[in-house]
Amino acid sequence: MNPHPTPPAPGNSAQRVEHDLLGDRELPADAYIGIHTLRAAENFPLTGTPISVHPELVAAIAAVKQAAALAHCDLGVLDTGLGDAIAAACQEIRSGLWHEHFVVDVLQGGAGTSTNMNANEVIANRALQLLGSEPGNYALLSPNDHVNLGQSTNDAYPTAVKLALHEATRVLMPSMDRLATALAERATAFEDIVKLGRTQLQDAVPMTLGQEFRAFELGVRDDITVLHRSAEALCEINMGGTAIGTGLNAHPGFAQACADHLARITGVPVHPARDLVEATQSTGAFIELSSALKRFALRLVKLCNDLRLLASGPQAGLAEIKLPELQAGSSIMPGKVNPVIPEAVTQVCFDVIAADTAVSLAAQAGQLQLNAFEPLIAHTLLTAQRRLAAACSLLAGACIAGIRADAERTYSQASGSAVLATALNPVLGYELSTELARRAVAQRRPVRDVAREAEVLPAEVLDDLLDPRRLVGG
Amino acid sequence: MNPHPTPPAPGNSAQRVEHDLLGDRELPADAYIGIHTLRAAENFPLTGTPISVHPELVAAIAAVKQAAALAHCDLGVLDTGLGDAIAAACQEIRSGLWHEHFVVDVLQGGAGTSTNMNANEVIANRALQLLGSEPGNYALLSPNDHVNLGQSTNDAYPTAVKLALHEATRVLMPSMDRLATALAERATAFEDIVKLGRTQLQDAVPMTLGQEFRAFELGVRDDITVLHRSAEALCEINMGGTAIGTGLNAHPGFAQACADHLARITGVPVHPARDLVEATQSTGAFIELSSALKRFALRLVKLCNDLRLLASGPQAGLAEIKLPELQAGSSIMPGKVNPVIPEAVTQVCFDVIAADTAVSLAAQAGQLQLNAFEPLIAHTLLTAQRRLAAACSLLAGACIAGIRADAERTYSQASGSAVLATALNPVLGYELSTELARRAVAQRRPVRDVAREAEVLPAEVLDDLLDPRRLVGG
Amino acid sequence: MNPHPTPPAPGNSAQRVEHDLLGDRELPADAYIGIHTLRAAENFPLTGTPISVHPELVAAIAAVKQAAALAHCDLGVLDTGLGDAIAAACQEIRSGLWHEHFVVDVLQGGAGTSTNMNANEVIANRALQLLGSEPGNYALLSPNDHVNLGQSTNDAYPTAVKLALHEATRVLMPSMDRLATALAERATAFEDIVKLGRTQLQDAVPMTLGQEFRAFELGVRDDITVLHRSAEALCEINMGGTAIGTGLNAHPGFAQACADHLARITGVPVHPARDLVEATQSTGAFIELSSALKRFALRLVKLCNDLRLLASGPQAGLAEIKLPELQAGSSIMPGKVNPVIPEAVTQVCFDVIAADTAVSLAAQAGQLQLNAFEPLIAHTLLTAQRRLAAACSLLAGACIAGIRADAERTYSQASGSAVLATALNPVLGYELSTELARRAVAQRRPVRDVAREAEVLPAEVLDDLLDPRRLVGG
Amino acid sequence: MNPHPTPPAPGNSAQRVEHDLLGDRELPADAYIGIHTLRAAENFPLTGTPISVHPELVAAIAAVKQAAALAHCDLGVLDTGLGDAIAAACQEIRSGLWHEHFVVDVLQGGAGTSTNMNANEVIANRALQLLGSEPGNYALLSPNDHVNLGQSTNDAYPTAVKLALHEATRVLMPSMDRLATALAERATAFEDIVKLGRTQLQDAVPMTLGQEFRAFELGVRDDITVLHRSAEALCEINMGGTAIGTGLNAHPGFAQACADHLARITGVPVHPARDLVEATQSTGAFIELSSALKRFALRLVKLCNDLRLLASGPQAGLAEIKLPELQAGSSIMPGKVNPVIPEAVTQVCFDVIAADTAVSLAAQAGQLQLNAFEPLIAHTLLTAQRRLAAACSLLAGACIAGIRADAERTYSQASGSAVLATALNPVLGYELSTELARRAVAQRRPVRDVAREAEVLPAEVLDDLLDPRRLVGG
Repeated sequence: MNPHPTPPAPGNSAQRVEHDLLGDRELPADAYIGIHTLRAAENFPLTGTPISVHPELVAAIAAVKQAAALAHCDLGVLDTGLGDAIAAACQEIRSGLWHEHFVVDVLQGGAGTSTNMNANEVIANRALQLLGSEPGNYALLSPNDHVNLGQSTNDAYPTAVKLALHEATRVLMPSMDRLATALAERATAFEDIVKLGRTQLQDAVPMTLGQEFRAFELGVRDDITVLHRSAEALCEINMGGTAIGTGLNAHPGFAQACADHLARITGVPVHPARDLVEATQSTGAFIELSSALKRFALRLVKLCNDLRLLASGPQAGLAEIKLPELQAGSSIMPGKVNPVIPEAVTQVCFDVIAADTAVSLAAQAGQLQLNAFEPLIAHTLLTAQRRLAAACSLLAGACIAGIRADAERTYSQASGSAVLATALNPVLGYELSTELARRAVAQRRPVRDVAREAEVLPAEVLDDLLDPRRLVGG
Repeated sequence: MNPHPTPPAPGNSAQRVEHDLLGDRELPADAYIGIHTLRAAENFPLTGTPISVHPELVAAIAAVKQAAALAHCDLGVLDTGLGDAIAAACQEIRSGLWHEHFVVDVLQGGAGTSTNMNANEVIANRALQLLGSEPGNYALLSPNDHVNLGQSTNDAYPTAVKLALHEATRVLMPSMDRLATALAERATAFEDIVKLGRTQLQDAVPMTLGQEFRAFELGVRDDITVLHRSAEALCEINMGGTAIGTGLNAHPGFAQACADHLARITGVPVHPARDLVEATQSTGAFIELSSALKRFALRLVKLCNDLRLLASGPQAGLAEIKLPELQAGSSIMPGKVNPVIPEAVTQVCFDVIAADTAVSLAAQAGQLQLNAFEPLIAHTLLTAQRRLAAACSLLAGACIAGIRADAERTYSQASGSAVLATALNPVLGYELSTELARRAVAQRRPVRDVAREAEVLPAEVLDDLLDPRRLVGG
Repeated sequence: MNPHPTPPAPGNSAQRVEHDLLGDRELPADAYIGIHTLRAAENFPLTGTPISVHPELVAAIAAVKQAAALAHCDLGVLDTGLGDAIAAACQEIRSGLWHEHFVVDVLQGGAGTSTNMNANEVIANRALQLLGSEPGNYALLSPNDHVNLGQSTNDAYPTAVKLALHEATRVLMPSMDRLATALAERATAFEDIVKLGRTQLQDAVPMTLGQEFRAFELGVRDDITVLHRSAEALCEINMGGTAIGTGLNAHPGFAQACADHLARITGVPVHPARDLVEATQSTGAFIELSSALKRFALRLVKLCNDLRLLASGPQAGLAEIKLPELQAGSSIMPGKVNPVIPEAVTQVCFDVIAADTAVSLAAQAGQLQLNAFEPLIAHTLLTAQRRLAAACSLLAGACIAGIRADAERTYSQASGSAVLATALNPVLGYELSTELARRAVAQRRPVRDVAREAEVLPAEVLDDLLDPRRLVGG
Repeated sequence: MNPHPTPPAPGNSAQRVEHDLLGDRELPADAYIGIHTLRAAENFPLTGTPISVHPELVAAIAAVKQAAALAHCDLGVLDTGLGDAIAAACQEIRSGLWHEHFVVDVLQGGAGTSTNMNANEVIANRALQLLGSEPGNYALLSPNDHVNLGQSTNDAYPTAVKLALHEATRVLMPSMDRLATALAERATAFEDIVKLGRTQLQDAVPMTLGQEFRAFELGVRDDITVLHRSAEALCEINMGGTAIGTGLNAHPGFAQACADHLARITGVPVHPARDLVEATQSTGAFIELSSALKRFALRLVKLCNDLRLLASGPQAGLAEIKLPELQAGSSIMPGKVNPVIPEAVTQVCFDVIAADTAVSLAAQAGQLQLNAFEPLIAHTLLTAQRRLAAACSLLAGACIAGIRADAERTYSQASGSAVLATALNPVLGYELSTELARRAVAQRRPVRDVAREAEVLPAEVLDDLLDPRRLVGG
C-alpha cells in the first residue's frame, strides 16, 4: 500500500549507462536522476515516502546549490556558462518544478548523501538540457565536479535542512498567530462573564472567562516568541566546511560568498557558522527547534484538555462553554456531540512531543565528526511543523472562533460558592473564614447566608465583600 | 504535497441528500460514503493521510462488521437477507475492494467514531447495491440500525484496531525471523574466526565472531517471543460492550457469538474480554505491543551500532568485518563507502522508540469510560510495525547476508593482546597477572613474551594457557 | 547538601596499605573496604547516594557471592574453610549487617565493577575476621582470587541486579494487590449507585459506580499479571559467563551449581541463561520490567485523574465522589481541600514513566559484549519499584478506602440525561432517537417528557425503557 | 531504608495544640513546624527525601516571604514589628539555619501548598521567638494571616521554585565553563596533532586533534548561552497573583513592591509576570530550562561516547587518546582500565534526559488555573542541575585535563589513508580520484604510491597535495 517511488525501469526505450564505484547501471536516456539516485532509491525501501513529500527541503537544497554555483562563479572557480545553467536549473526547482525526481526515501542511510546526490544529479541533468546538451553528458557538466563543487553532503545537506525548517517556521508562526488571535477575540467577547476559577480541579476564587481565554492567548504568543528565537538559530549554516568542517577543497572565500548569495536569494539571514568543525557535528539548532515545538505542543495539550473540561456535559459536566458542533458524536448514543477538534489536535501534539524523542535519540547518537541520523531529524521536524500548523488553523477556525459561553450558569456557580469566603480573610482571618466556608459547603448554602447568620459582619459589608464581580481583579 | 482525499464534490451529476443532527448534505447519488464520512473528511485536514493507508485496519473493521452481522442473524435479531448482504459487502472489503472509500484522516477526533461511521456507511451502501437497491436507501438497510446493530464505536473500533495490529504482527514476525536466520547463518560461517571481545570499548578476552553473531541472533529470537506474547493480548476483544462496556442495546448472546464468528473468519483466536467496562477504557494491550516493539527497536539500535563499530575503517577503525557495498558514500570523499543500511535501520528504530512516547502519552490521557486517543495509537503502531518489518528484511538481505570477516586481522589482534593475561589468573593470581599485563601494554609486546621473560611458568604451559583459540569457550 | 559517604580517612590510627595497578593507598587497619572501593568512592562524587540505599542490591550481591563460594566448594576448586568463611560473611550481609560499607555512588562508571569490587572487599575482610585473621590479609583470602573466584563483574553484577529487582517485585506486587483490594471493596460498596458514564468527557449511558471501580480494580490486577511475568524474565541469570559470556576461568560445572545454590538460598527460581554471551550484553529483562512498571504507571495516572475528575467540586464540579480529607488545601482559600493523594501518586507515576526513558537510553547505548550503563538501570528500576509500592499503599489506604459517593446526585443526573435516548434506538431507530435527544437537551427537559409529548411510545413502555437502573447491564 | 523524616512525636515533654479544618493535633511546645506541616509530613511517605534536600528551594521560599513582608510593611498593611521579625527569621533561613524543619516529602500533592505551609509555620514560629514570644502564639503572629499575607501557594511557590532553579543555574554554569576551559586547554595542547576525521565511523579527511577538542569546547559554550537565556525566563515571577492570578486579597502595589525587594535581596533581576493568570498556570519557564538541560545532556552523551571511541583499545581499538587511569577496570581481566568517568557522566546525562520526560508529562497534565505537579518539576530540575554540575566538574578535572594523545599513531594513520584522495578531486575529478582511492584500499597501499604508479601527476605535486598536514585547514 505504500508504493515506493519506482526508479526508472532499465530496459525501456533509449538508455544511457552510468558508472560508479560499484559498476555500471542503465538509466533511461532522458532521466534526470543518475546512478547514485538509482541505487539509493533501491537501497531504502522503508517508508515508501520520498523526500519530495517535503517541498521545502527540495527547494532548500536547490537554493543551496544555486548559491554555491553563483559564489563559485564570483570566485572564478566555476565557468560562468556552467554556473548560470546550474543556477537556472535550481531556480526551476525552487519554483516547484522537477520535485517528482527527488525519489529517495525520507528514512535513508548515509547522513543525507543520497539526498545531496539526488539533487546534484537532477540539477546537473536539467542544466545539461538548458545548455542544449543531454542528460548524462557529465563530461560537460558533472553532478560531483560542478554541482557539488566545493561542497560535501556534510555541509550542503545540513544547510538545506536548516533552510527548509526555517521556511516551515514561516508557515507555522502565522498559524499560531491565527490561534492566538482567535483566543484573543474570545477573551474580549467573554470579558464580563464571571465564573469560578479552579485549582487542582477544586472550586477556587472567581475570575472571568475572558481572563481565562486571555491567558490561553498569551501563552500561545509566548511560544511564538520562543519559536522565533529557535528559527534564528537555524540561520547559522555549514557551507564552506565540506567533509568534516575543515573546508578541504573549498575556496577560502566560499563560506561567506555562498552565505551571502543564499541570504539574498532566500530572504533568510543565514551566515556562516563560527566554527565549521563544530557545526558539522552539532545538532544543537535542531534540538532547540524540537524543544520549541514540544513546548508549544505541551501547552496545546493542556489548552485542549481545558476546553474539553469546560465543555464537558451537556448536563452532567462543567458545561461552562459549548464548542461548535461539527459531526454526530456517536454511532449508538443519539444526539451526542464530542469535542472532536480538541481531541484531534491533542493527538497531533502527542505526535509532536514524540517527535522530540526521535530527535533526541538521533542527536545523542552522533559520533565523532558527523551525525548520521539527520535525515530522520529533518523528516521528523518538517512533519511536526506542518502538522502543528494545520492543527493551529483548525483549532482556531473550527473550534475556538465558535465557542459560546453559558454565562447564567457560570455566574450562578460563582455567586453560590463557598470559596468566596476567601474574600473574608483580610477582615476575619483565615481561621474564622475557614469555619464559615466549611459550614457553607456542609449545609449547601451560600457563604453569605452562613456569614450573615453568624453575624460576623454587617449584611451590606458582606454583600459587598462577597460579590463575585468585585473579586475577579483588574 | 499531501493531497487530502477529496470527498465527493457536491453538485456534480446526480445527487442524494442525507441528514444528520446538524442538517442536510448533498452527496453524489452513487457515493458509498454518507453524511457522517463527508463531515469527518472535512473536519480533520491534519495529515493528509487517509485511514486506507492501513489496509489491515480497513480489512479488520470489515471483519468486525461481518462477524457482527452473522452473529445477529444467528441470534435472530437481524433479517438474514440484510445480514447476508452486509456480510458479502464486508467480504469484498476484506478481499481488498473499496478501500479508497475509507477517507477519514488517520489523526481524527472522536475516538474512532468517524472510522466506524465510514465503515458503516460504505458497507451499508455497498450492501444496498448487492441487494439490488441504491446507495442511500437507508430505510431498507441503515448504516446505524443494521451495520452498527448492537455495537458502538467504543467496542467495534478497538476490536478492529486490535485485529489490525495482530495482522501486522503476522507480517513483522516472519521478517524478524528472516533477520534472525541471516544472523544465524553468519554465526555458523564465522564460528572459527577468533577475535577479541570488547567490554566498555576496551579490549577484553577472546571469543569467536560466530559467538558474537549467535548472540545477535538469539536476542532477536527473544524479541520474537515477546512480540508473540503481546499479540496474544490483542486477542481479548470488546464486542458486546457497546458504548461504555455495559452492553446496552446488545443482545446478551452477542459478545460470544460475535467473537466466535470473528475468530472463524479471521483465524485469529479472539475472545470476549473478561470485563467489558474495563476493556472499553483500557489501553493495556496497546501499551504491551508498543513496549515489545520498543524493546526490539532498542536491541536493533545496539546491533546496528555494533555492526558499524566492527566495520569501522577501512584503515583506521576496528575493521573486523566488511559490510556489503551498496552505494558511493560521499559526494566529496572518493571511494568512501558507508554503512548505510544499519544507519537507515537505526533511524527506523529511533522512530519506533519515539512511537512508544506517543502511545504512552495517549494512554495516560484516557478519561473515565474511554480513551479518545486510540486513532493516534492505531496509526502509530501500525506504522511502526510496517516499518520495522521493512527494516528487518532490508537489514537481513542487504547487509547481514553479505558480511565478510577479516579473520587474519582479528586473530592477530587476539593473539597479541595483553588481556590474554586473564588466563593466567587461576595459576598466578590476579595481582601478578595484572603486573604482566601492564608490562605487555607498556612495552607493546605480547603478554607471552613478557611472561616468558619473567619466567613465571614454563614456556609450553604459557603457550597453551595463552592460545586464544583455547580461550573462547565451548 | 548531599554529603558523599566519606571513605575511611587515611592517617587515622592504625593503617594498612593496599596496592593496585595505580599504586599504593593507606586504609584504616580494620576497614572492611579495600583499595578498589576507596578509589571508586572518590571517583564518582555525583549523586551523594551510596549503593547501600538499595539494601536489596547489597543483599543480592552477597547472595551471589555466597552461592558462588558454595558452588566452588562443591566443585572442589575452593578450600572449604575459606568457602565457609565467605559464605558466613555473605549471610551476615544478607541479614542486614555491614551495609554501611557499601559506599560507592549509585551512578558509577565501570559497568558495576566498583559495586562488585566493593562487595568482594567487604566480604573478604569480614571473612578474614571470621577466620580469626585481620582485614587486608589477602594472602590468606583475597577479594579477587577467592570471593570473585570464577566470576567477573560482568556475570556477578547483572545477576545481583536481577535478583534485587526480583526482590523488589515481591514488595511491589503485594502493594498493588492492596490497591486492587481497596478498589474491589469500594466496587462492592458502590454496586447499586447508578450514575452516568462519560466518554470523551461527554455524558454517556448509565452505569454503576461499582462497575467503574471494578474496572479500576481489574486493570490493576492485569498489571500485576504483567509484572509477575516480567519478574520471571529476571530469573535467567549470567553466572558462569565471566568476562564476556565465554566462561573463561569458570569451572564447566559452575553455572549450574551456582544457580542451584542461589535458587536454594534466595527462594527465587533462577536458572542459567541459555546463551551466556547473549545474556552478558542483553538488557532485555530490564527493559521488560521497565515496560511493565511504565504500563502500570500509565494506568495509575489515568486512575488518579479519574478520581480527581469524579471528586471535582465541591460545588461546581462533577462531585460524584468525595475523597477523604487529609489536610487543608490552600494557604489562602479557607475550607478548600484538595485531592492531594492522587496528585502525589501521579507525580510518582510521571517519575516512573520517565524512568523508562532512562532505561531505554541506557539499553540502546550498549556496545559489543557489554552494556556499561547497568548501574543507572539498577538504580532507576529499584527506585521506581520502591516508590510505586509506597504510592500504591498510600493510595489504597489514605484515599480509596475512604471514598464516599453522592448517590442522590448521581442518580438524579442519570435519570435526567438525554443520553437515555440510546435505549430507544432499538425501538425507534437512531434517527428518531437523535431528534428526541436533541430536543431534550435544548429544552433542558428529561427525554422521557419529550418522548411522551411526542407520543412515540406508550408512557409505561417509555418509563420502563428509560429507567437508568435497567440500563446499567449485568 | 529510606527513613522518612520523623515529625515531632506527640506526647513527649511539653506540648501545644494546634487546630485546622480537620481538628486538633498536639505538637512539642517548641516545634517550629505547625499542624499543616505535621499532617503533610504524614501524608506523603513516598520518597523519604524531605524538601530540605534542596537548600536552594528552602532559601528561595524564605527570600519570597522576606520580600513579601518588607513589601507589606512599605505598603502599610503589615505592622513593622511583625514584618521585621518575619524578615529576620527569613534571613536566618537564607543563611542556612533551620533547614532541618523543612520536612515535607519532595513528592507531595497539593501543588506546593505543603511546602508553602511548612515555610509559613517555621518562619512564624521562629519570628515569634525573635519577638520574645513562644511558637504557636499565632494570635500575635500567624503563619497564614501574616507570613502568608497577600499571598497564596499559587504565587509564592512557583516564585520560590523559579528562584531556586535560577540559583542552581549559577552553580551549573561555572561548572560547564570549567568543562569548556578544560576542553579548550586540550585543544591548544593538541593543535599540531594530525589525525583522520571520521564520518559515519568511516575514515574521512584529516584534521587535528586540536580541532576536534575545539569543537567540543565550542559546543559546550553554546549550551552555556542557551542555559543563560533559559535562566532569564525564570525571572518572570508570580507574586501578586494570589490564588489564580487575579490578585484577590493582594494589595494593588504588592506585585511590584515584592518583586523589587526580592530582586534587591537576592540579586536576581526578577520582575512581575505580564499576566498573572497566565503565569499561574504556565510551566513555560520550567520547560525551557528542562530543554536547555536536555540539550546539554545530549551533547555530553555524544562527547563522552567520542572520548570512549577515541580511547578504545589499548591494542585493538582506535587508541588515538589515553584517558587518565583512575581505578582497575575489571575484577577478572588484569590490567584492564575502563573509561569510567565518561561512563558515569553518560549515566547522569541519560538521567537528565529522562528528567525532561517527567517535566513534560507534568507540564501537559496541568488543568485550568493551575498545574498541580510543580513539586515534581522542582525536584526533578533541581536534582538534574545539581548532578550535571557535579558531572561537568568531574569530567573536566578527572578526565579531560589528563588526556594524552598518541601523535605518532594518528599521524601514521592519516598519512596512509586512502581518503587523502579527496585532495585530488579538484585536479583529477571525482571519478578518477575514486578509482585511485579504491585501488589503495584494495591493495593496502598509500594512495600516493598508487597515484604515482598511475602517473597521474608529478610525484612532487602528489606529495604536496597528499600531505595530511596541508589538508587540515586553517
